[in-house]
Amino acid sequence: MARYELYYWPTIQGRGEFVRLAFEDAGVAYTDVARTKSGMAKMMRFLDGKEGGARPFAPPFLKSGSLVVAQTAAILHYVAPRLGLVPRDAQSQLLAHQLQLTICDLVAEAHNTHHPIATGLYYKDQKAEARLSAQHFTRDRIAKFLGYLESIIVKKDALFLVGKRHSYVDISTFQVINGLRYAFPKSMQRIEKKLPALVKLEQRVAARPNLARYLASPRRIPFNTDGIFRHYPELET
Amino acid sequence: MARYELYYWPTIQGRGEFVRLAFEDAGVAYTDVARTKSGMAKMMRFLDGKEGGARPFAPPFLKSGSLVVAQTAAILHYVAPRLGLVPRDAQSQLLAHQLQLTICDLVAEAHNTHHPIATGLYYKDQKAEARLSAQHFTRDRIAKFLGYLESIIVKKDALFLVGKRHSYVDISTFQVINGLRYAFPKSMQRIEKKLPALVKLEQRVAARPNLARYLASPRRIPFNTDGIFRHYPELET
Repeated sequence: MARYELYYWPTIQGRGEFVRLAFEDAGVAYTDVARTKSGMAKMMRFLDGKEGGARPFAPPFLKSGSLVVAQTAAILHYVAPRLGLVPRDAQSQLLAHQLQLTICDLVAEAHNTHHPIATGLYYKDQKAEARLSAQHFTRDRIAKFLGYLESIIVKKDALFLVGKRHSYVDISTFQVINGLRYAFPKSMQRIEKKLPALVKLEQRVAARPNLARYLASPRRIPFNTDGIFRHYPELET
Repeated sequence: MARYELYYWPTIQGRGEFVRLAFEDAGVAYTDVARTKSGMAKMMRFLDGKEGGARPFAPPFLKSGSLVVAQTAAILHYVAPRLGLVPRDAQSQLLAHQLQLTICDLVAEAHNTHHPIATGLYYKDQKAEARLSAQHFTRDRIAKFLGYLESIIVKKDALFLVGKRHSYVDISTFQVINGLRYAFPKSMQRIEKKLPALVKLEQRVAARPNLARYLASPRRIPFNTDGIFRHYPELET
């Protein structure tokens, strides 16, 4: 086991991917526990409250020594300074954190498009509602969230969301753009035309050597219709 | 203006109430800006990116000196150590934060019950879907989230969610319980029977002198059907 143990569902990118990407970009070793032998059983012990440390409500969670931290944004807030993925001052870290939380809100809304009624129901049992929900999401919400991020980059006149250097928020922005491109390709083609700075930022992040290597490796789980971003063509017609 | 300026919609409890409650409990002065004269216009300037500091995506946000911090959980994470509402060590603060984020997830799901299709549509235009969504929420989700909080208190054998003393997470738990009681009274009557420790924690928080005074004052906006927790009797039949 590496010093950092990440616990997340082994067959999807989902929320865990934001954490995986940070480790991969930093080139810092981590164990993706549920993807190792007996890893799922290990993860369930934490969720069932059978392990020490704070009991997580849901994956992803990170274990480092005796510390257990859950919630995607909290994990990144904790680990980013240790990975060199956020400026050292507290004010920048707080800014990064609130941007990450806003990205998490966008991710949650993307999830709601295919599960508008209940997470406990299958997609096929809420398909009509999902279509309605996706219509509003692709028409109004994506542009509202991404336009907000675009406005921050434009105002700074630099391809960074926090300070004057690359941070985990840029990586998360890369990920959310790619998730949305997979789920809603037609809509994104239209929406991205108005987001030139964000598109450049996404390209800059994708070209970072460690990330490019990771994205081309088998460690990067392909997007699929079990994850948070799902491509159902019927949601975009 | 007080040293702390809170910006939030002036006619609802909503997400801003979690911040209001922390200040009220601590007895620390804050200005609830949008409830003062011309306050709404002041708030909109920040949302439109016309003010300095980080541009917030949405209310609530807090201004303190030159710092602007948005996102309910991030605001509390920033301000709680300054209000004495969280232990001083970083590990406890991280634990408190992840619990608050989980409470925020519950709040978001509560909101989705009356707006399952889109926040941009009126409730009356998604009533049938809201009823289905509320059925699942009241049957499965409330008990899952609150049962998780109950398990933490029971394991610690103390009426506190973080460490061995009162924290803002206890206050937020008080608020979410009361919001859910308002929105779904029948369901909560049933669900609370299995949450004796959580109910005692809620009573402990409600009896804190500063909070009791606030709750009885005109500063506490009553729950209403414009807020996040909404009582629509048809959602609980």
